[in-house]
Amino acid sequence: MKAILAEILESLYRHKITPEKALQKLKDFPYEDLGFAKVDHARELRRGSPEVVFGQGKTAREISRIARSILKKDNNLLITRLSPEVYKSLKKQLPGGKYHQLARCLTLIKKRPAAGRGQVAILTAGTSDIPVAEEAVVTCNFLGNEVRQIYDVGVAGLHRLLGYYRQLRQARVIIVAAGMEGALPSVVAGLVNAPVIAIPTSTGYGASFHGLSALLAMLNSCPGGVGVVNIDNGFGAGYLASLINHL
Amino acid sequence: MKAILAEILESLYRHKITPEKALQKLKDFPYEDLGFAKVDHARELRRGSPEVVFGQGKTAREISRIARSILKKDNNLLITRLSPEVYKSLKKQLPGGKYHQLARCLTLIKKRPAAGRGQVAILTAGTSDIPVAEEAVVTCNFLGNEVRQIYDVGVAGLHRLLGYYRQLRQARVIIVAAGMEGALPSVVAGLVNAPVIAIPTSTGYGASFHGLSALLAMLNSCPGGVGVVNIDNGFGAGYLASLINHL
Amino acid sequence: MKAILAEILESLYRHKITPEKALQKLKDFPYEDLGFAKVDHARELRRGSPEVVFGQGKTAREISRIARSILKKDNNLLITRLSPEVYKSLKKQLPGGKYHQLARCLTLIKKRPAAGRGQVAILTAGTSDIPVAEEAVVTCNFLGNEVRQIYDVGVAGLHRLLGYYRQLRQARVIIVAAGMEGALPSVVAGLVNAPVIAIPTSTGYGASFHGLSALLAMLNSCPGGVGVVNIDNGFGAGYLASLINHL
Amino acid sequence: MKAILAEILESLYRHKITPEKALQKLKDFPYEDLGFAKVDHARELRRGSPEVVFGQGKTAREISRIARSILKKDNNLLITRLSPEVYKSLKKQLPGGKYHQLARCLTLIKKRPAAGRGQVAILTAGTSDIPVAEEAVVTCNFLGNEVRQIYDVGVAGLHRLLGYYRQLRQARVIIVAAGMEGALPSVVAGLVNAPVIAIPTSTGYGASFHGLSALLAMLNSCPGGVGVVNIDNGFGAGYLASLINHL
Amino acid sequence: MKAILAEILESLYRHKITPEKALQKLKDFPYEDLGFAKVDHARELRRGSPEVVFGQGKTAREISRIARSILKKDNNLLITRLSPEVYKSLKKQLPGGKYHQLARCLTLIKKRPAAGRGQVAILTAGTSDIPVAEEAVVTCNFLGNEVRQIYDVGVAGLHRLLGYYRQLRQARVIIVAAGMEGALPSVVAGLVNAPVIAIPTSTGYGASFHGLSALLAMLNSCPGGVGVVNIDNGFGAGYLASLINHL
Amino acid sequence: MKAILAEILESLYRHKITPEKALQKLKDFPYEDLGFAKVDHARELRRGSPEVVFGQGKTAREISRIARSILKKDNNLLITRLSPEVYKSLKKQLPGGKYHQLARCLTLIKKRPAAGRGQVAILTAGTSDIPVAEEAVVTCNFLGNEVRQIYDVGVAGLHRLLGYYRQLRQARVIIVAAGMEGALPSVVAGLVNAPVIAIPTSTGYGASFHGLSALLAMLNSCPGGVGVVNIDNGFGAGYLASLINHL
Amino acid sequence: MKAILAEILESLYRHKITPEKALQKLKDFPYEDLGFAKVDHARELRRGSPEVVFGQGKTAREISRIARSILKKDNNLLITRLSPEVYKSLKKQLPGGKYHQLARCLTLIKKRPAAGRGQVAILTAGTSDIPVAEEAVVTCNFLGNEVRQIYDVGVAGLHRLLGYYRQLRQARVIIVAAGMEGALPSVVAGLVNAPVIAIPTSTGYGASFHGLSALLAMLNSCPGGVGVVNIDNGFGAGYLASLINHL
Amino acid sequence: MKAILAEILESLYRHKITPEKALQKLKDFPYEDLGFAKVDHARELRRGSPEVVFGQGKTAREISRIARSILKKDNNLLITRLSPEVYKSLKKQLPGGKYHQLARCLTLIKKRPAAGRGQVAILTAGTSDIPVAEEAVVTCNFLGNEVRQIYDVGVAGLHRLLGYYRQLRQARVIIVAAGMEGALPSVVAGLVNAPVIAIPTSTGYGASFHGLSALLAMLNSCPGGVGVVNIDNGFGAGYLASLINHL
Repeated sequence: MKAILAEILESLYRHKITPEKALQKLKDFPYEDLGFAKVDHARELRRGSPEVVFGQGKTAREISRIARSILKKDNNLLITRLSPEVYKSLKKQLPGGKYHQLARCLTLIKKRPAAGRGQVAILTAGTSDIPVAEEAVVTCNFLGNEVRQIYDVGVAGLHRLLGYYRQLRQARVIIVAAGMEGALPSVVAGLVNAPVIAIPTSTGYGASFHGLSALLAMLNSCPGGVGVVNIDNGFGAGYLASLINHL
Repeated sequence: MKAILAEILESLYRHKITPEKALQKLKDFPYEDLGFAKVDHARELRRGSPEVVFGQGKTAREISRIARSILKKDNNLLITRLSPEVYKSLKKQLPGGKYHQLARCLTLIKKRPAAGRGQVAILTAGTSDIPVAEEAVVTCNFLGNEVRQIYDVGVAGLHRLLGYYRQLRQARVIIVAAGMEGALPSVVAGLVNAPVIAIPTSTGYGASFHGLSALLAMLNSCPGGVGVVNIDNGFGAGYLASLINHL
Repeated sequence: MKAILAEILESLYRHKITPEKALQKLKDFPYEDLGFAKVDHARELRRGSPEVVFGQGKTAREISRIARSILKKDNNLLITRLSPEVYKSLKKQLPGGKYHQLARCLTLIKKRPAAGRGQVAILTAGTSDIPVAEEAVVTCNFLGNEVRQIYDVGVAGLHRLLGYYRQLRQARVIIVAAGMEGALPSVVAGLVNAPVIAIPTSTGYGASFHGLSALLAMLNSCPGGVGVVNIDNGFGAGYLASLINHL
Repeated sequence: MKAILAEILESLYRHKITPEKALQKLKDFPYEDLGFAKVDHARELRRGSPEVVFGQGKTAREISRIARSILKKDNNLLITRLSPEVYKSLKKQLPGGKYHQLARCLTLIKKRPAAGRGQVAILTAGTSDIPVAEEAVVTCNFLGNEVRQIYDVGVAGLHRLLGYYRQLRQARVIIVAAGMEGALPSVVAGLVNAPVIAIPTSTGYGASFHGLSALLAMLNSCPGGVGVVNIDNGFGAGYLASLINHL
Repeated sequence: MKAILAEILESLYRHKITPEKALQKLKDFPYEDLGFAKVDHARELRRGSPEVVFGQGKTAREISRIARSILKKDNNLLITRLSPEVYKSLKKQLPGGKYHQLARCLTLIKKRPAAGRGQVAILTAGTSDIPVAEEAVVTCNFLGNEVRQIYDVGVAGLHRLLGYYRQLRQARVIIVAAGMEGALPSVVAGLVNAPVIAIPTSTGYGASFHGLSALLAMLNSCPGGVGVVNIDNGFGAGYLASLINHL
Repeated sequence: MKAILAEILESLYRHKITPEKALQKLKDFPYEDLGFAKVDHARELRRGSPEVVFGQGKTAREISRIARSILKKDNNLLITRLSPEVYKSLKKQLPGGKYHQLARCLTLIKKRPAAGRGQVAILTAGTSDIPVAEEAVVTCNFLGNEVRQIYDVGVAGLHRLLGYYRQLRQARVIIVAAGMEGALPSVVAGLVNAPVIAIPTSTGYGASFHGLSALLAMLNSCPGGVGVVNIDNGFGAGYLASLINHL
Repeated sequence: MKAILAEILESLYRHKITPEKALQKLKDFPYEDLGFAKVDHARELRRGSPEVVFGQGKTAREISRIARSILKKDNNLLITRLSPEVYKSLKKQLPGGKYHQLARCLTLIKKRPAAGRGQVAILTAGTSDIPVAEEAVVTCNFLGNEVRQIYDVGVAGLHRLLGYYRQLRQARVIIVAAGMEGALPSVVAGLVNAPVIAIPTSTGYGASFHGLSALLAMLNSCPGGVGVVNIDNGFGAGYLASLINHL
Repeated sequence: MKAILAEILESLYRHKITPEKALQKLKDFPYEDLGFAKVDHARELRRGSPEVVFGQGKTAREISRIARSILKKDNNLLITRLSPEVYKSLKKQLPGGKYHQLARCLTLIKKRPAAGRGQVAILTAGTSDIPVAEEAVVTCNFLGNEVRQIYDVGVAGLHRLLGYYRQLRQARVIIVAAGMEGALPSVVAGLVNAPVIAIPTSTGYGASFHGLSALLAMLNSCPGGVGVVNIDNGFGAGYLASLINHL
């Protein structure tokens, strides 16, 4: 924002614009106002990635209008939490879009994203955590990162995890999705020195309290080097991993 | 109770006692009533272990009276959650009693307890979990079990735990005390086929919520074979381990 | 795992395998990797029981592939939390499988399991707790244990429970499933000296908070000798009971 | 209030008072305003008992002024949650007052309260619940009820409770104080048909969560016939029992 | 139970029965065992009311078998939490049964219940609380109590409540059902000296947390004289009111 | 109420009515009793706004009867939380009513409401918060307030909010609806000196806990000047804003 | 901020300052940076009130330095949550400061604040809520509002509240502090049409959960017109009331 | 660990060691066993940083022994959560150690740590969050990172934050510590594209619930790019930041 501000100040000083105009510019420039949504076209400059559409709680029509506003600017498009039903009704309006079934995401690439510097390893404790992990996979790929998926390596059978020790050490960032007791990120963080991004998943029942138990376990992770995102937030983990991997 | 009932019925049938007497017996027999406490002398017969005095929330005077009521019957005495302060004021009234500083327990052995069949391994994830583990140690010893302590083998450094793999496999029952993310019982249960008794400890801070996080993690333990007791309940874990070890 | 490790080290020392091969073996040996799942064939050796398939959150196709991977090795098969719908679509691929309606489990026995040493008594407080108890029954049977079911003996009518006093005393391990106030395990643990495994159930409404109230009550059980598993976790209780009963 | 209203209306109709006076009366009559407290002298008429002073969170000076305002009207005085420290500084200003150490209450009787019709049985599960029970005892006595104390009869040793079966059946109302798993009220309610007032106590540790576990258990009590009051609320239970016992 | 015990002891003493028989009697007498349920026929003697069938979580077939076991003994029948769907499939098997739509209860009266001594007033704060209140109404009527319904008199318009002041004062027991802020029981308890039974209802949204807010408010009720039952527990409130009203 | 009381007292004094009549009047006057609901016709006088019908948890028939009772008195009608299904069945009985799709409200204006003094700005953090905000919009309009909607200006892109700085400063009251982290009200309250009414919304997933996270964040708002209403309570916010805007 | 921005832009346009200077101004102008705190001198302009020092968690030295930075600019000073101990050590450095014992606040007035337009009524349910209410009183006075205190008028004795009906109707804004069941704001909001600001207090014990119960009750307030602030947040309520009262 | 394993396998293959020796090595090598603690000397190799001593819950004697075990190996020493009292008694045994008052940490540098690649910006929302931030500062410095502290820039006065926009954009990683509403990380993450590590602090009162509110807000952070650590976990944030900054 301040980059924009600096530019505006410069123009003002050079009498290219009036003070009124300057205020106006500040208000109008960086997004398109659809009324129900303000699409942030300047975000890619400001934050290093295009605006992502969070599909949940939006109607097909709202998503479609936001998507088209993004595509119009030749930006890449990622829609997360897009149910198959809504996808079906959007399909025709977004030709070229790819729907990722497990991850429930849609991607549409207009220009190649900047490549991340290393590999992002994405682990799950169990099979049921895979959809959440896949959201992270899609996000990482969308943002230009190479991904390695290592699934079903929970602490109930440590030898499964240890068999991937080499791959873990090669990763630049590691994402770990786990539900139930949420112990896997702690174990992984004890083995490697890559930053670990922990995603608690709502996998489980009873006292898993829809992911709360895993969340708490991860926040209390003993080894250090673990950052936690929201329950089932595969996108958030992938996004953070990508930021780190592009450093 | 029914054993006692059967005996009373028998006596009644043989006219050794009147119906009134029978009712009376039922009421008076199995405990001594101190008013503020009913000391359960029949418990050893019924439950396989003498009544244990839970020291917390009792005054020194109450503890002392209950303790003497137990000792009078030549039963062994275990007082748990006995603060050093209260111990100091009780000391003289319980000659022969041994105070276990870390475990905050007092034991006084009058007759040798029946020996358990195998070894109980007692693990902690960290150093701060030791006092809780020691309560389990004292309880197990008091009830006739051989104990092996393996401390500070949390998941942040798995190799420490794996170094004890042989000892773990030799144990008949395993008690695991862990705070914070509470992941250790899951890892242990994935390695061995002894029953694992998990004690969440209040070790930690912030989102450990005084042991709640560890508790939830343990309840959600994926491998199976884990039974959980209350937060910081070293006694309960030791008692359950002893029951199993005496089978 | 270490048993396997020792064997590998031995082979290495005797130059039967190269160091590379040794590392490779460690990685490949104990499970079959289906990508979305790593089926743990060594588990029976390591943990005394075959891997069990947790059906919830897995697609019929995933379950089927895991199941066949297990059966291929002539291991017994237990699938828990298998909905009737998913069962129906699996049915033909698992000939010989037995579906337990109430317990929502499927079992398929290839070789007779080692027999437990005593009887496992499985109690419920009410009628609504029976499905959870049945999951424990199926699990216990699957693992070679003789089971005695005692249902609907909650604390609201103590005489119902007391009528089974003899059976309770004969059991080597006791499982108690209860929802609502969750008081039954405490009462049972006060009567016998067998280890009691308490299963809180989600039976109830309002302030039962889907089993949380029963869970908390059980964790606070006063008599000692009670280990608690997750809400509605019939399998976990049965598994733990079996471990104890095979000691 | 309406009784007072009716009387005022009557006076007004008979021109004994003016409308203005009537409004005035309504405002001034039923209490004395001390600024920081409005002492409710009409309460005995309205609610069948004098106002009771809740000592917690009030300074000695505030308590003293409220107490004297009550005594001035020759009402009986009950101060609950009165710490020994505050009592010490009040002592001289309330000659004739009796301090109940365990219950932490002060009573001062000016006129004999109306007698309740039956006996109130007050039970505790353990020794640590006695202070809370004693608050109920003092309250019941203060309000004219005969009380029978039955302490330390928790579910861990049912025979202790059953020995008091006759006394339980004789009680008109039963108060049960229990912490930890809070199971005793359910068991009692299953044995008798007197109304049971359950007091969860903060006795316990860890997952007792300062009485929350007991509270939840009591709210979920299966047998019916149980009304629950706040954690440690001995006064509330005694008060409700007295209302019932005076019917 | 003890009454039965005394009788058995007597018989035994008089050599009418053998000790074995006595034990047998104790086990068999007071209920019919349907396997999945133990129907408690002695309950009416013991607790002053017939066993009530809690319909939730039971299949139509289970309910039907329990119901017929009760009716066979010519006891009155009350089934609570009976959905219209289950009712429909039960209808023919329970001729003479009356289904109460709002309350979701079925009653079938074989013999007139003992009449309560006074009137039970049943209040709701709002219209949405009526179904819960109606469960209390049906329960009270079933148990022989006269009921007065006073609905939609919440604290948002106090004059509505005050208009019923006379009726409130006439009631022997008062039940108050309220959701949201749950303030009505406190206000009512401040006006009258009848015991107040508070039912928190799950009426509301957001931070009402399905009745938790109302529940907590009621437990913290300041005036005293309030006993609380579980959220939406119309039956429990009605049952407790009836116990009190029959004193 | 007291205004009414004063009037009644006056009439009584002047012997226009008898004391009995006075009591009667008090009871009957200010509302119409439909049995299941007491419609409060005096509310507009007392509270400055007509009674509003909370549609959730009421049947179409109940809503219809209440609505007609209100309209009969020529009051304006607002029904909130009215689902499209219920609306459809009510439609014909409420000719002239306008259904607001997004807000799920129905309004029917009989007389123009008193105009508020300034503008109410209504902001949302995201697109998914709009339905809640629209409930506030409809409420504000219904009560005579001019509204300015500023949607999708959450803290993830501050420049979007800053672009509306002028509009914010012009508003007399500001309503802010936000889910997830609920940060927007704090930021807004730091920028302006209008009172801010914060509505936490249930927008989000996982650890948003259905709006609890946003609620807590808003209650802890640092800048001051923020009052919080219930989760998703657009009506409550609009109503409070209107009260303030009419001062 | 934007006001400042506009001015800066203007200066820039008129070449009074360079773009660099403009950026600099933006950074330096509105606060004094003490390192550990940034004192916001522009706040009075921006928000209509001077910055207030939240004393809790700050050392005496930090408070003193912030206070002097404020006084140096001849702004009025309010320090909240200032313990007597810290006050004692600050006393000499803040001559002219007035310490409000009950409210635990310090005020020091340099210039008369703008007067609010009406009266703010501040109510408490009980005596123990007074300290919180006094924080609101001090805040309101500090910000130029006339205050009327009405204490100890909780719902347990409605007539006490009704006696102040006239005063309530005269207030422009009403603050209500209540702990325990937190019912008073709902009752007050049902009687008047002034905006009600509800402060839950931590008064109570057990299931009051340090004010959580009162907080939830207030958020669920049925009548509408209630905005809630944090538990014990007397300052926040006073500040919001003042904003409204200055409209 | 596997690196070590590979080496051991190599030695074994080359017959430099026996299988027994290999197993032994595995067990003994990587840590020193103090009984109550296993000091992990291999950690620096494995995890890129020396073992850090978590001082809370350890006695001075335990800390001292662990510290000396670390120093003996010429590793750098960091003790966190070291109270001034414990520090005082340790002081003499750790010559050269530096105690950081605010951060409550002790550092002792034996060899210069590898330098991080960029700058870590550490922000706080308020003054009370500084101690937590300082723990992060000390940790970052200890691990070789350059740090920039930006304190008291909470969302209540956005201009304070915006003034540091340039510094924020220059940082390679940003740590944000905030209590209360915890909004600052969201705002920061909306402005920059560096990874943001959010530390909820226990600053606040009432509904801040000791940092829970801030924690939840941060987990729900809308902009993406935020990883959360435990409440008050300055060390964890610093450690994670360092891992990222050394990539």
